[in-house]
Amino acid sequence: MIDLAKRVHDHTWKIDPIVRSLLDTDFYKLMMAQTVQKRHPDVEVTFSLINRSKHVPLAELVSEQELREQLDHVRTLRLSRGEVTWLRGNTFYGKQRMFSPDFIDWFEKFRMPEYHLERVGDQYELTFHGPWAEVMLWEVPALAILMELRSRAVLRHLGKLDLQVLYARAMTRVWEKIQGLRDLPDLRISDFGTRRRHGFLWQDWCVQAMIEGLGPRFAGTSNCLIALRREVEAIGTNAHELPMVYAALTDSDADLAASPYKVLENWQKDYSGNLLVILPDTFGTRAFLQNAPAWVTEWTGVRIDSGDPAEGARTAIDWWTAHGQDPRQKLIIFSDALDVAKIRELYAEFHGKVKLSFGWGTLLTNDFRGLGDDDRLAPFSLVCKAVAANGRPTVKLSDNHAKAMGPEAEIARYKRVFGMTSQREGELIV
Amino acid sequence: MIDLAKRVHDHTWKIDPIVRSLLDTDFYKLMMAQTVQKRHPDVEVTFSLINRSKHVPLAELVSEQELREQLDHVRTLRLSRGEVTWLRGNTFYGKQRMFSPDFIDWFEKFRMPEYHLERVGDQYELTFHGPWAEVMLWEVPALAILMELRSRAVLRHLGKLDLQVLYARAMTRVWEKIQGLRDLPDLRISDFGTRRRHGFLWQDWCVQAMIEGLGPRFAGTSNCLIALRREVEAIGTNAHELPMVYAALTDSDADLAASPYKVLENWQKDYSGNLLVILPDTFGTRAFLQNAPAWVTEWTGVRIDSGDPAEGARTAIDWWTAHGQDPRQKLIIFSDALDVAKIRELYAEFHGKVKLSFGWGTLLTNDFRGLGDDDRLAPFSLVCKAVAANGRPTVKLSDNHAKAMGPEAEIARYKRVFGMTSQREGELIV
Repeated sequence: MIDLAKRVHDHTWKIDPIVRSLLDTDFYKLMMAQTVQKRHPDVEVTFSLINRSKHVPLAELVSEQELREQLDHVRTLRLSRGEVTWLRGNTFYGKQRMFSPDFIDWFEKFRMPEYHLERVGDQYELTFHGPWAEVMLWEVPALAILMELRSRAVLRHLGKLDLQVLYARAMTRVWEKIQGLRDLPDLRISDFGTRRRHGFLWQDWCVQAMIEGLGPRFAGTSNCLIALRREVEAIGTNAHELPMVYAALTDSDADLAASPYKVLENWQKDYSGNLLVILPDTFGTRAFLQNAPAWVTEWTGVRIDSGDPAEGARTAIDWWTAHGQDPRQKLIIFSDALDVAKIRELYAEFHGKVKLSFGWGTLLTNDFRGLGDDDRLAPFSLVCKAVAANGRPTVKLSDNHAKAMGPEAEIARYKRVFGMTSQREGELIV
Repeated sequence: MIDLAKRVHDHTWKIDPIVRSLLDTDFYKLMMAQTVQKRHPDVEVTFSLINRSKHVPLAELVSEQELREQLDHVRTLRLSRGEVTWLRGNTFYGKQRMFSPDFIDWFEKFRMPEYHLERVGDQYELTFHGPWAEVMLWEVPALAILMELRSRAVLRHLGKLDLQVLYARAMTRVWEKIQGLRDLPDLRISDFGTRRRHGFLWQDWCVQAMIEGLGPRFAGTSNCLIALRREVEAIGTNAHELPMVYAALTDSDADLAASPYKVLENWQKDYSGNLLVILPDTFGTRAFLQNAPAWVTEWTGVRIDSGDPAEGARTAIDWWTAHGQDPRQKLIIFSDALDVAKIRELYAEFHGKVKLSFGWGTLLTNDFRGLGDDDRLAPFSLVCKAVAANGRPTVKLSDNHAKAMGPEAEIARYKRVFGMTSQREGELIV
């Protein structure tokens, strides 16, 4: 009887919302929002959607109306009481009261700011402008919405049995991947797949499969809502937007060169322990480490998010060793383009040399390659980045040229200031 | 696909557990456990099941094996991470951090202590013995298990359509009751129906109906797990076991007479505000108020749990007035044998004279009277009480003789010490 009523009630819904909670986002966004809201309340930024996979004609697949409905729905969301309770009462990284009463007050009143949407050819221009701490919270839901609307568009024409078989095959694939990691005794792996997931329910299923299949080797998920519901760790620290915005706000080459370390200086005032993870690739890993002040070597770990991951890890290990740090006490987090073979390869090389952790993203939560008609469900490279801060353009160099962004003249200046001489041209899966 | 797997997986369950969480209990048990664990860690008590409705042959209806399986299941339960988060992070009665780190540490490690079960004729003897703070947590799950096993026993032989119609009628009844309260503008009512509910899912449904039907007039539920899941207030303060155990531990008539006020003296060291609610009827309301020290009149409210409720409320109002307190600033909570007509009658008499609150129990969550075959689903009067403390028997007089308990000679002594001359012989529904 209850189900019947529920079904009929559901008929009154205008849409089937993709993002149903402000916590359906990555944990590091909250860590960053807390520090940004406290330290940089006056910085205004612009975030912009960038589809690096031009062969996917988003505006052909997804109608402007359904996209607007989903974005508008996110703007109606407020934290629920249970969600506030979780933020206040849960232990994050072994620490109670990670979020200050000030931040929680702010977040309880928070609603997503406005968006600007325009169709240009077969793509969308989607931008967000306003206070940094507010605008930054659009990145993950905006990406998740576009990815899932694209999935829905492709799946819309499949019959019930086709759908059942499709998901049966996708589940089999994920389960076999997980089985392929079970023999690594000291594996520590997390789900980092929120932004480019096939869909919310699918990500939630993948996390349950990881819990079941990997037991204590599964460290948690970057998705706050799923961490709450499945009672696992929420995982994440910080992202490129911090050095990108700090850099854009500098007025001289000297300040620009110092800005990535200013980010860390502020961060370590707010956080400690396993949250002290360096993301060194924004303007080139090698130069970042070479020029770093000595205290940076005290930090807990490094996250390798572009370039050749083994090379990045070796660079970090050499750097620690050169500064008298024991790499076996240090943490390396791999988070770029991981799948089972790559995870096993990195584990084989670095296990025992450093503490290892993996953040498994798109190829965990959206590996529908070859399923459905042709390859129309394959993941693609969609990002949403801070492109300006207080009216000045941002720049990212990255260790992979395909991930670089910013105005050409500024890229040249940054390369000069940060001493970047070579850059890998990597294949870009996602 | 997920459902299919879940169904097959569920086949491997040995039982369908009734109590699946240590939080599936009444909030006041946690309030009391915290203070008892801190102040009286060495008191040992015995709780015992008492079926005041002898016409319900529990041991005929419910097999000893299924009862043991359910009780054993409760002994496997531990607080989950999300539950600990809720206790730590939620706001209770407008207050953060209601539970001390010490109590939460204790509760995280807690498992239900042993039970002793024996069949005697067509009834069960079910007793629990051990440290007070541990044993007291058996009361609510033990009652809920027996009530639900009895429901299941009666329903076991009904076909699917019969069940659908039965629940449709029960839902209609609850919904009509709730509609019958909607025109009381300042109503404040809670669900107090955990212990004698028809079943867990049914209580959860009733709470959802209250949320939907009464909006802000619904104040919350005594059930912690449902409060957590439905994101409503957890409601409750203290119970008769406090004065009963304190009284049993005294060594002289003078100490006995003072013991109910000793309970309050300790309670107000631990709690404040709306948690300062007097439960005056344990050894007779009239005498309790007459002999109370002046500071007791400062307390926030009184809970009326036996006797004629209007008479009890008038007694309290007269008492406050005689001591220069403004009754309009005071809270009266009615929690005994409520149904719509009685709630409306009490509201009509006392609205405007005091702050009013209702704790609606068995006739909210278990009014299956006349549904099913004959009256075999009607609620009955099952309790689980502290019958001894450190080896001495406890006594309860109550304002209703049918609720009195204890050895005859002790009852006589208590009546003499507390000056009880008359006592109402009330009808006992539940």
